Amino acid sequence: MVDMDKIISLCKRRGFLFQGSEQYGGLQGVWDYGPLGVELKNNVKQAWWRKMVYERDDMEGLDSSILMNRLVLKYSGHEDTFCDPMVDCRKCKKRFRADQIEASEKCSDGESHDYTEARPFNLMFRTTVGPIADENNIAYLRPETAQGIFVNFKNVLDSTNRKVPFGIAQIGKAYRNEITPKNFIFRVREFEQMEIEFFVKPGTDEEWHKQWIEERFQWYVKLGIRPENLRKYVQKPEELAHYAKGTTDLLYRFFPDRPDEQKQFDEVEGIANRMDFDLTSHSKGGKLVLKDGKVFPNEHAINRLTWFDHETNQHIVPYVIEPSAGVDRATLAFLIDSYHEEEVKGETRLVLRLHPELSPIKVAVLPLKKNHDGIVSVAKGIKKLLQGKAGWRTVYDDTAGIGKLYRRQDEIGTPFCVTVDFQTLQDQTVTVRDRDTMAQERVVIDALPALFSEKLFRKQN
Amino acid sequence: MVDMDKIISLCKRRGFLFQGSEQYGGLQGVWDYGPLGVELKNNVKQAWWRKMVYERDDMEGLDSSILMNRLVLKYSGHEDTFCDPMVDCRKCKKRFRADQIEASEKCSDGESHDYTEARPFNLMFRTTVGPIADENNIAYLRPETAQGIFVNFKNVLDSTNRKVPFGIAQIGKAYRNEITPKNFIFRVREFEQMEIEFFVKPGTDEEWHKQWIEERFQWYVKLGIRPENLRKYVQKPEELAHYAKGTTDLLYRFFPDRPDEQKQFDEVEGIANRMDFDLTSHSKGGKLVLKDGKVFPNEHAINRLTWFDHETNQHIVPYVIEPSAGVDRATLAFLIDSYHEEEVKGETRLVLRLHPELSPIKVAVLPLKKNHDGIVSVAKGIKKLLQGKAGWRTVYDDTAGIGKLYRRQDEIGTPFCVTVDFQTLQDQTVTVRDRDTMAQERVVIDALPALFSEKLFRKQN
Repeated sequence: MVDMDKIISLCKRRGFLFQGSEQYGGLQGVWDYGPLGVELKNNVKQAWWRKMVYERDDMEGLDSSILMNRLVLKYSGHEDTFCDPMVDCRKCKKRFRADQIEASEKCSDGESHDYTEARPFNLMFRTTVGPIADENNIAYLRPETAQGIFVNFKNVLDSTNRKVPFGIAQIGKAYRNEITPKNFIFRVREFEQMEIEFFVKPGTDEEWHKQWIEERFQWYVKLGIRPENLRKYVQKPEELAHYAKGTTDLLYRFFPDRPDEQKQFDEVEGIANRMDFDLTSHSKGGKLVLKDGKVFPNEHAINRLTWFDHETNQHIVPYVIEPSAGVDRATLAFLIDSYHEEEVKGETRLVLRLHPELSPIKVAVLPLKKNHDGIVSVAKGIKKLLQGKAGWRTVYDDTAGIGKLYRRQDEIGTPFCVTVDFQTLQDQTVTVRDRDTMAQERVVIDALPALFSEKLFRKQN
Repeated sequence: MVDMDKIISLCKRRGFLFQGSEQYGGLQGVWDYGPLGVELKNNVKQAWWRKMVYERDDMEGLDSSILMNRLVLKYSGHEDTFCDPMVDCRKCKKRFRADQIEASEKCSDGESHDYTEARPFNLMFRTTVGPIADENNIAYLRPETAQGIFVNFKNVLDSTNRKVPFGIAQIGKAYRNEITPKNFIFRVREFEQMEIEFFVKPGTDEEWHKQWIEERFQWYVKLGIRPENLRKYVQKPEELAHYAKGTTDLLYRFFPDRPDEQKQFDEVEGIANRMDFDLTSHSKGGKLVLKDGKVFPNEHAINRLTWFDHETNQHIVPYVIEPSAGVDRATLAFLIDSYHEEEVKGETRLVLRLHPELSPIKVAVLPLKKNHDGIVSVAKGIKKLLQGKAGWRTVYDDTAGIGKLYRRQDEIGTPFCVTVDFQTLQDQTVTVRDRDTMAQERVVIDALPALFSEKLFRKQN
């Protein structure tokens, strides 16, 4: 297994990830996806959308806004309780998350910090909307995409023919003003989520919860995560959110170099049984009940968020199973899991064994000789032939010798290279090289689209 | 041509668009994309990405963050000058955009408003990042995606083998605190952009500018926009931003019911020649020059944003051609342009003649009889057969009679319906119905994937 520093170095060097606003010294907890990073992240999102929306019969998609009316976050409970405990150091004035303080941290004078009592710090980013910047116009950047789904429950129901059980899936950015962002793209302030709220009849919720845990575990495994690096962690009663009947986290081995094996694993996704907490809280005539027992009757919502069951002739408030995944964390997990170094002819070969569906570039077309008109023209023709198929990112590269070009593609996970050489001009065949086996075979140009269609997506289903 | 009210009504009824935070009375200038809207918008974005990134040889992608270090927006000029003129009414205290006041607007007392002098109102949303909410920690939600490209120019150059001319393409959200959002998703506060910054050698910029105007015009036309509804508007010298050598806007006929023909058209995209303004402003040792002549030497940037030309052995600051499109506006244009009402057998048929690449749903599979095991099983099998191909959104619907089901698919732009009937059980053929011609043909099930592959994307290139 690889340590994080190597991943970070590869990501910067090859253009997967750059520090946000780096040209001005950065903005802590914010990252930019470079030319390869945007492809990898988009592929992760599309693989999720395809499997969770297109290949099911019980799912609708949604793309709700990031800026939300303050009341949404009031009745979700975030305004009152979405906080981390924060302490200040009286000497150096720095602020820390109280539950993550490490004993080794030294103050500016080299001694220990002198901490204040912990107090709650709300993690939501706040702004004002409209031309008057006052209390009445506060809005928040959503801290999770989930709330946009709940408040649209009736809109989706009214505009489709859905019956419970069904789900609503959404991918989008969310924001948390983390006190101490850290670990590359693991804990950041601007991030992206892939969330499903799956609505079921009360009584069927535990069975559905089980199914979703299994479904989501398998999603990662089918896309290449080794099962030994992924764990199901059942939250203990004292860890559960007060509205959750049960939550299972999927933990990935993000930190393999930590001595304590348990601490090597951290959350990539959580699958919660939230019961009717959210739909009730956001309903006209409903109420929000906080952990401490405080109750807020909902005096602002417009609709009751219920579903009319024609079989029993009753309005019911469905229960909700929520598989909630982090796009950036999933992307990081795929990077870590696919990273391999191996000895080849006395040299170290770095290869990302990404699932072809996730690879930023599907095929690289390489001319054996860069200034030979015939070879260049055929190679560019092949790039054109392949780039239009199924939206494959295909590149042409002639900026180094063939051995070096192969290594460059290996370390960014390109599953196949096509090399055009002098023989090509004779018999219209090219060399197709496999990233994983490094085996080469000669193939007729016309056969390439079908060959890659088959090879690239054979593992998909 | 259709007026906006009909579009809005269809969008709400069928789940293309909902008002943001509608459950709590909404949030002005913010919209949520519903189950069909998210597919349509994603298809617009993917069509752009495919054409602008995958099918060119000179483009890299990027996905930079929305939260940006304040200094990025200082040296871009936004902090000082990204303002609209605002006036207050002294009587009712409402605020208005001074250059958009309409004579017909009445105050709360039914008389005219009593306006103050206009003053600049900065359109950027402001927040603070980190645990201390003070002046030092102000950050902005980016007002355009472009700045994320400029400040990553060196990162992209260093991690790829690019030589000028080449471009960087990006899709993402941007935010403008519009004083008066209006016209559905035309003028909103949270929106999405598709922007390219194309870097060229000075001296070649005007030729590239011309090429890009043509390229972008054709993109809309190939995806179905009628050329008579799209205009090129060359900005007059007095309209140009002070840093622009020339800008051509693409105007779409968003408002066909306005009596003044010229006012029917408004901007869907702008293609500007920005010269070296941005790379110079963001460079170490560079400077920002505002319209009023004010100069800010750049004292914060880390790198010089130049490119070393090995042919001439010189560092040059490339010029920039910027095709900048609004995703929401493009989506709205595709909706308006495809909206048709026609008389069929004495009834009005509403049909969205969307380009198949943009259609939210590619194929609807409809059983002629909903409770017949044989028919249902074959129909569901066909859904499964098609949904895995090329990421097509395929649906199964049995919630009405066949005539009504056809109309439902017509009005959301589904290009093909497949009907499974009793004959299917005999000879394995189904009826394929074409949205535009309403013609029906019988086809063998096994032939469907190839048939749709050909039909759905034949117009693509």
